[in-house]
Amino acid sequence: MSKRIKDFIDGEEFVGFYLLKEVEAKQTNSSIPKDYLDIVMADSSGFISAKYWDASKTDIETFGPMCLVKIQGSVQIYRDKLQVKVVRIRKATEQDGVSITDFIRSAPVSSSELLPIIDQAIASITNSEIKAIVTLCYERVKDKIESSPAAKLHHHAYYGGLAYHVVRMLELGEFICRQRPFLNSDLLKAGIILHDIAKPVEMVSEYGMVLDYSNQGKLIGHISMASNWITEAALKLGVDLESNVVLALQHLVLSHHNLGEWGSPVQPQLPEAVALHYIDAIDAKLQMVEDILNITAESEEWTAVIRGLENKPVMRLKL
Amino acid sequence: MSKRIKDFIDGEEFVGFYLLKEVEAKQTNSSIPKDYLDIVMADSSGFISAKYWDASKTDIETFGPMCLVKIQGSVQIYRDKLQVKVVRIRKATEQDGVSITDFIRSAPVSSSELLPIIDQAIASITNSEIKAIVTLCYERVKDKIESSPAAKLHHHAYYGGLAYHVVRMLELGEFICRQRPFLNSDLLKAGIILHDIAKPVEMVSEYGMVLDYSNQGKLIGHISMASNWITEAALKLGVDLESNVVLALQHLVLSHHNLGEWGSPVQPQLPEAVALHYIDAIDAKLQMVEDILNITAESEEWTAVIRGLENKPVMRLKL
Amino acid sequence: MSKRIKDFIDGEEFVGFYLLKEVEAKQTNSSIPKDYLDIVMADSSGFISAKYWDASKTDIETFGPMCLVKIQGSVQIYRDKLQVKVVRIRKATEQDGVSITDFIRSAPVSSSELLPIIDQAIASITNSEIKAIVTLCYERVKDKIESSPAAKLHHHAYYGGLAYHVVRMLELGEFICRQRPFLNSDLLKAGIILHDIAKPVEMVSEYGMVLDYSNQGKLIGHISMASNWITEAALKLGVDLESNVVLALQHLVLSHHNLGEWGSPVQPQLPEAVALHYIDAIDAKLQMVEDILNITAESEEWTAVIRGLENKPVMRLKL
Amino acid sequence: MSKRIKDFIDGEEFVGFYLLKEVEAKQTNSSIPKDYLDIVMADSSGFISAKYWDASKTDIETFGPMCLVKIQGSVQIYRDKLQVKVVRIRKATEQDGVSITDFIRSAPVSSSELLPIIDQAIASITNSEIKAIVTLCYERVKDKIESSPAAKLHHHAYYGGLAYHVVRMLELGEFICRQRPFLNSDLLKAGIILHDIAKPVEMVSEYGMVLDYSNQGKLIGHISMASNWITEAALKLGVDLESNVVLALQHLVLSHHNLGEWGSPVQPQLPEAVALHYIDAIDAKLQMVEDILNITAESEEWTAVIRGLENKPVMRLKL
Amino acid sequence: MSKRIKDFIDGEEFVGFYLLKEVEAKQTNSSIPKDYLDIVMADSSGFISAKYWDASKTDIETFGPMCLVKIQGSVQIYRDKLQVKVVRIRKATEQDGVSITDFIRSAPVSSSELLPIIDQAIASITNSEIKAIVTLCYERVKDKIESSPAAKLHHHAYYGGLAYHVVRMLELGEFICRQRPFLNSDLLKAGIILHDIAKPVEMVSEYGMVLDYSNQGKLIGHISMASNWITEAALKLGVDLESNVVLALQHLVLSHHNLGEWGSPVQPQLPEAVALHYIDAIDAKLQMVEDILNITAESEEWTAVIRGLENKPVMRLKL
Amino acid sequence: MSKRIKDFIDGEEFVGFYLLKEVEAKQTNSSIPKDYLDIVMADSSGFISAKYWDASKTDIETFGPMCLVKIQGSVQIYRDKLQVKVVRIRKATEQDGVSITDFIRSAPVSSSELLPIIDQAIASITNSEIKAIVTLCYERVKDKIESSPAAKLHHHAYYGGLAYHVVRMLELGEFICRQRPFLNSDLLKAGIILHDIAKPVEMVSEYGMVLDYSNQGKLIGHISMASNWITEAALKLGVDLESNVVLALQHLVLSHHNLGEWGSPVQPQLPEAVALHYIDAIDAKLQMVEDILNITAESEEWTAVIRGLENKPVMRLKL
Repeated sequence: MSKRIKDFIDGEEFVGFYLLKEVEAKQTNSSIPKDYLDIVMADSSGFISAKYWDASKTDIETFGPMCLVKIQGSVQIYRDKLQVKVVRIRKATEQDGVSITDFIRSAPVSSSELLPIIDQAIASITNSEIKAIVTLCYERVKDKIESSPAAKLHHHAYYGGLAYHVVRMLELGEFICRQRPFLNSDLLKAGIILHDIAKPVEMVSEYGMVLDYSNQGKLIGHISMASNWITEAALKLGVDLESNVVLALQHLVLSHHNLGEWGSPVQPQLPEAVALHYIDAIDAKLQMVEDILNITAESEEWTAVIRGLENKPVMRLKL
Repeated sequence: MSKRIKDFIDGEEFVGFYLLKEVEAKQTNSSIPKDYLDIVMADSSGFISAKYWDASKTDIETFGPMCLVKIQGSVQIYRDKLQVKVVRIRKATEQDGVSITDFIRSAPVSSSELLPIIDQAIASITNSEIKAIVTLCYERVKDKIESSPAAKLHHHAYYGGLAYHVVRMLELGEFICRQRPFLNSDLLKAGIILHDIAKPVEMVSEYGMVLDYSNQGKLIGHISMASNWITEAALKLGVDLESNVVLALQHLVLSHHNLGEWGSPVQPQLPEAVALHYIDAIDAKLQMVEDILNITAESEEWTAVIRGLENKPVMRLKL
Repeated sequence: MSKRIKDFIDGEEFVGFYLLKEVEAKQTNSSIPKDYLDIVMADSSGFISAKYWDASKTDIETFGPMCLVKIQGSVQIYRDKLQVKVVRIRKATEQDGVSITDFIRSAPVSSSELLPIIDQAIASITNSEIKAIVTLCYERVKDKIESSPAAKLHHHAYYGGLAYHVVRMLELGEFICRQRPFLNSDLLKAGIILHDIAKPVEMVSEYGMVLDYSNQGKLIGHISMASNWITEAALKLGVDLESNVVLALQHLVLSHHNLGEWGSPVQPQLPEAVALHYIDAIDAKLQMVEDILNITAESEEWTAVIRGLENKPVMRLKL
Repeated sequence: MSKRIKDFIDGEEFVGFYLLKEVEAKQTNSSIPKDYLDIVMADSSGFISAKYWDASKTDIETFGPMCLVKIQGSVQIYRDKLQVKVVRIRKATEQDGVSITDFIRSAPVSSSELLPIIDQAIASITNSEIKAIVTLCYERVKDKIESSPAAKLHHHAYYGGLAYHVVRMLELGEFICRQRPFLNSDLLKAGIILHDIAKPVEMVSEYGMVLDYSNQGKLIGHISMASNWITEAALKLGVDLESNVVLALQHLVLSHHNLGEWGSPVQPQLPEAVALHYIDAIDAKLQMVEDILNITAESEEWTAVIRGLENKPVMRLKL
Repeated sequence: MSKRIKDFIDGEEFVGFYLLKEVEAKQTNSSIPKDYLDIVMADSSGFISAKYWDASKTDIETFGPMCLVKIQGSVQIYRDKLQVKVVRIRKATEQDGVSITDFIRSAPVSSSELLPIIDQAIASITNSEIKAIVTLCYERVKDKIESSPAAKLHHHAYYGGLAYHVVRMLELGEFICRQRPFLNSDLLKAGIILHDIAKPVEMVSEYGMVLDYSNQGKLIGHISMASNWITEAALKLGVDLESNVVLALQHLVLSHHNLGEWGSPVQPQLPEAVALHYIDAIDAKLQMVEDILNITAESEEWTAVIRGLENKPVMRLKL
Repeated sequence: MSKRIKDFIDGEEFVGFYLLKEVEAKQTNSSIPKDYLDIVMADSSGFISAKYWDASKTDIETFGPMCLVKIQGSVQIYRDKLQVKVVRIRKATEQDGVSITDFIRSAPVSSSELLPIIDQAIASITNSEIKAIVTLCYERVKDKIESSPAAKLHHHAYYGGLAYHVVRMLELGEFICRQRPFLNSDLLKAGIILHDIAKPVEMVSEYGMVLDYSNQGKLIGHISMASNWITEAALKLGVDLESNVVLALQHLVLSHHNLGEWGSPVQPQLPEAVALHYIDAIDAKLQMVEDILNITAESEEWTAVIRGLENKPVMRLKL
């Protein structure tokens, strides 16, 4: 069993399997420059910087991002931080019996538990037109939703992050509908499931890590994409495009970022749209806090700054 | 039993008890100007404009805001709106057996139900220092909290509004602590109870209607006032002012408006402070929607615009 | 022939046909209040305030906005401005041989000249998929485009204003495509025709005057509506929804307001999208200037302030 | 004939003449540090990074920015980008028969064609006072305008860029004056020629590359400088400083950046000032797009981000 | 001797001389409307609303703003405020021996004391070129500076207000130059005298009351006007326009509003320019406070809100 | 006597005592990396970059920030800047007779002169409650105020900087109270002394250099801390917490940053609070200018940009 990166200590020597998250070929600045690999190695517990000095041309061609490898190395402190000096490195083979999914960061609840909850929420929608439109839109990305992150950096940026975000929002939405019976729970459920439904197509991701935005993502954006998907679904289902159902679903999706400068072309003007925006906000913000605390060493009192929280860090306060 | 204002119709003649919400002496623009009273009369179901033509000097001196009166009048349409023409008016007397509290707008749950819930929440705080500080601050305003509104205009602007806001937030906070066990529920409960604790002193209100801000309210503001109350409580209780408990409680109160331009001198940097801000936001925003729908006639599809929601109205959409 | 409002002078007595733009029943503030009608009367040259004292109940029921009437009256100066005192008023009848279209403000070029130019522009699009999508979207509003204004207040707010705006933009677009051959003129033409195509459905207008926004207009907005129409058209035409043609057309429409705070969910990222936004801006801003100068008396050196131009007025400077 | 930088490929060996755009002496980080030259070499087709290892003290003193040199070198890929390893380098001599102007980036139309167009535009101004003031201001910078760029980075940042910008704006201005005859074409022409007239003095540039801002440029800025030049010209010509001609020209120049935060002390309040601002904007923005597409490799779908376009890149979309 | 308006009490009858600040002819809303005059009457102690019922056509033509009149009237309370009912009114004649200057609001120190202080400050400038330019600019407005206000509304909005503002700033500037000897006191004095020097031409004022902005004021603004005056003065004096003296004076004037959105095309970049902006700010803001306290009744604890102080009122706190 | 860093010239060899401001262990990029120390060495005249090649493990452990050392080295130009090559280095010992205070940057006036001035100002407060509260708050930090800087980076960022800032503000405040007698000088003095009184606890500093913010500093901030200290002092002194004295002192402290986005939860609403904010601003801004000019070489015409002055540099203009 490989030593977890989170548990590395200064002076340690180790052998184990890890994932290469970033790999860059660089050259030393010596008068006769030599190649080396500047690496970020990862497992599901975290990540660490590593150097592989004297890399050969073959090494440079062999090792790239998302490679699963076996590494022999030692841990040192360099400029106040732990760093790995790679002694030996080779690609993992089938015989090694390791799988990439063991090395990636995932949502705290597995997709196999999350997806049935979403299915169930859809099944519980009583308005048949809403249910049908949600179903059709959801099916477009069903195969991707198992792995999709909810964002590139800010929150839920890992395997299954989107499904986890949706499930948590469904729980919160259900609670708030009980608190405030004037809210239409069909609409709120539909809004929660549809609000980020186009994210798996807006972003190109692999194993829960966003590699880039797609052209559609850049030129149209997930908000307008989802709005178009609703149009498409209604048209296929024969639901009147001028009906209040279509109007409401489009509005929920289009307004969920609340302000124009945050990407919403219209502002929330249905009670459920107001609820949707704030449920989305509270879940995203608290997850940002939880995520950064999880990857901050227990010994640290303060996390790094969090972009989505006014660029402020969070303190781990002991009472 | 007096006819409810909400049920007035054109052409109706009535006699009943009502509250004078606004009274202004005006003069007609005729060449020999005559005095009349321009009135807003109210009951717990709503309010309506009224005119009392040919008011005498005595009338002008007799009738003022917050007077409980018996009115005989007729309802007419004037410029597309219903308006009352007052025929006779007199002050209510003890014999009439009416009480001002029957005529004011109140939270949907009565204070007698809300206050024990807050008491219970305080009792459930396990950290004794937090519990003691919350108790001391809460006792300063206990007699006022039965009636205090949570705001002047925006949300919960009625009798018992503040207590209702706090109870709803406590429910939501409890739910979120179950969702996210890394949150300290003592701190979150304390933050919810303390965040607006100085509002009854910041604002001068009567029967749930804010009349003005106090000098303290204008020059210090409820956020810094609450922070000072915590200092005072800790000092009286002998709790170390440099302790993490005091630090955390101060921070929760000071940061709960999230941004400097919204009145918070520091931004949330504890997980519970992030949670507190968003729980406050979601409860306030949804209540604004619910409140405005309640006073908008059923026949209207759109409400008036809501300042706290980007100056947008809300639509009453039928599916 | 009726005297043009623009030519009214102090002391004048007149009889003629006019359009009632606004009519409000008011009461005098005398001790026995009397009804009168507060009127804005209009013709194609401008508008003027008018009073009809001693209006009867029948008068109040008879005269409303958009009524075509015959008025006998006199012109007086009141508080530095001309005002009409109505002596007699009656509704125009069929025998009078007057038509409402003679009394409304229109674009400087008639719709019968404008629409063929737009047809021709569509016909000149060489890419058949773009042409087909533009055609389908255009046909949805073809019957309304003859009369539609381009905006409620800011610019081109009159009969045929939208068509006039589009034609002027097409001229400018053609010129700029000649200046800069790297621009795709098919895309730019399509963008110009589609950018405001949903405005006739976003806004409810009559005779070129916007009365209100539709529910779709408020909850979805003309930008996202047009994007949805493109989806619908492509689906009906069998054009691949993932194709670059659909991507480009959607992007042109979605980005044409340039910034999130101006309503665009994405910012221009195609050369033609950059061109579209600035062609739209220059045409709208210069039309605001031209429109306000047209309704400002020749004797005035300064116009009223223009909201779309940083709330500044424009000066009529003589060299 | 030297190989064009734009056509360099990996592994290529070459000998040719190039311009040194940037030269910095650095030291290797080896234990006995050695000097080398870190170079950006350029020709009119683009630029590329180059290293000259083992540079002597004489080399460091000899080679600097704007040197024209003969280089023998080889092209390699380093960190995904092409880079030159310099083998031999010497300064170009008179005998080599090369001229610096062959190696710099220029406007698409040569200054010898642009300047007569500007002269002609001035000659066509009918108002003699306007023509005289424009002529006097223009003559101050006539010798510099052949080479001046229009900006440091954003747009038209090359030899003759300012003249090219002015000529394009004159074309557009002429077209818009035909579209909208209420505009005074004398004023618009004058505004176009004068709006950036002080830029050659605001910025210190060589061969179309801005090296720095002058003290006047920093402390007064080109907008107020041009305003002062108009004062000076009017005084010399005996044109009344209080006349509408001077007022209008000053206003055109002062308001052309539209907003205070963009550097204009007053906002456009003449029709021609509104036109000037938007003609300037459309020409600058479209040139930014064209310029960045020109230096982006054909194989790239997306350009780098463009500061003047909301920090967005532009896509090269194939239909 | 006329009774001071500040000392009027309810029920009082009076006869005296006053200034008509505003006069508007209105009509009663009675069925046979009658003319009356709606007046604001003023003296140097304050102002009060007044009505003159049953005004004749002659009265309407006779009485206008800035008329000096003799009034017989009575003081009444109307809607919580004192108001005058005019019984008799006539224009003041030469024989009455009253002068308009006795009835206007003035700076606390008379212009006859202020102007010599400014003269002295100019005389004390040691650099002869600076002294000459300041002198020439100052002489342009010397005849107006006796009466000019410093602003329309915000601060020093009264007879001699500009001179008073300048003198106070000179005192403060002298003190700060003593505190910080690295500042050049010639430049600071010149900047203080020149910074608002064009205000008397930017604004059209009478007796210290701003009636409007001039066309130059609107299209150029006092900041750029002053900059042009410096150019003009230097040209007339033969001071090199490229010299550091002209550069510095222009910069001081152009940058004194600090930010683009406050009207400055460049930001302060000389030590004296930084000092000038903050000396201007502190004097203007404190004068706003002092001015509003002076016209707020002693019995009031809070003043009206002050636009230049973030729309906040100021409290008159007793210790 | 050691050579002053400000006087170092290229090629110089020197031996002397200096302070290590920053020390970082780095490794060369040679194939066999070697350790070296990257140093910033300082004295009271300035600082300079230095390298100590071939540092041993012992050296790395020995030398750290704030070490006082004896250095033998030589000065060279590297990339246009002077840099020191360290030949020998050892820690200073007691026998060397040097003190760290000789090597740090200090306010221009020594704390031994500044503190009595503050004492005197407190003594001169006539209101005994104000005096007592100020005294108690001041005594909390009296031992730290000798050395405390007023800010981390922006202004007065050196030994005794806070005391110097306060003394200068007291002088200015006294002058302004003479100019404007309506200001209460007790309140203004108290506000000046209290406004930054919590800074020594908000920031962790050593020898006038801020190393970090304390947890209290981050979670509460110096503004709210000072407000709490006033509460505490009043409670201890038996001053009524609801009194106007406490209200005014709290308000002065809370509002002194003027705007919410600058950290003030309330805006200035007492005359003395307005004065306090602008006195603070003018002193801070002018000190920023003076500080940066002092550390900019005489030969440089322009300083580096100043964050607190709109990111603009300041010019050293010679007349």
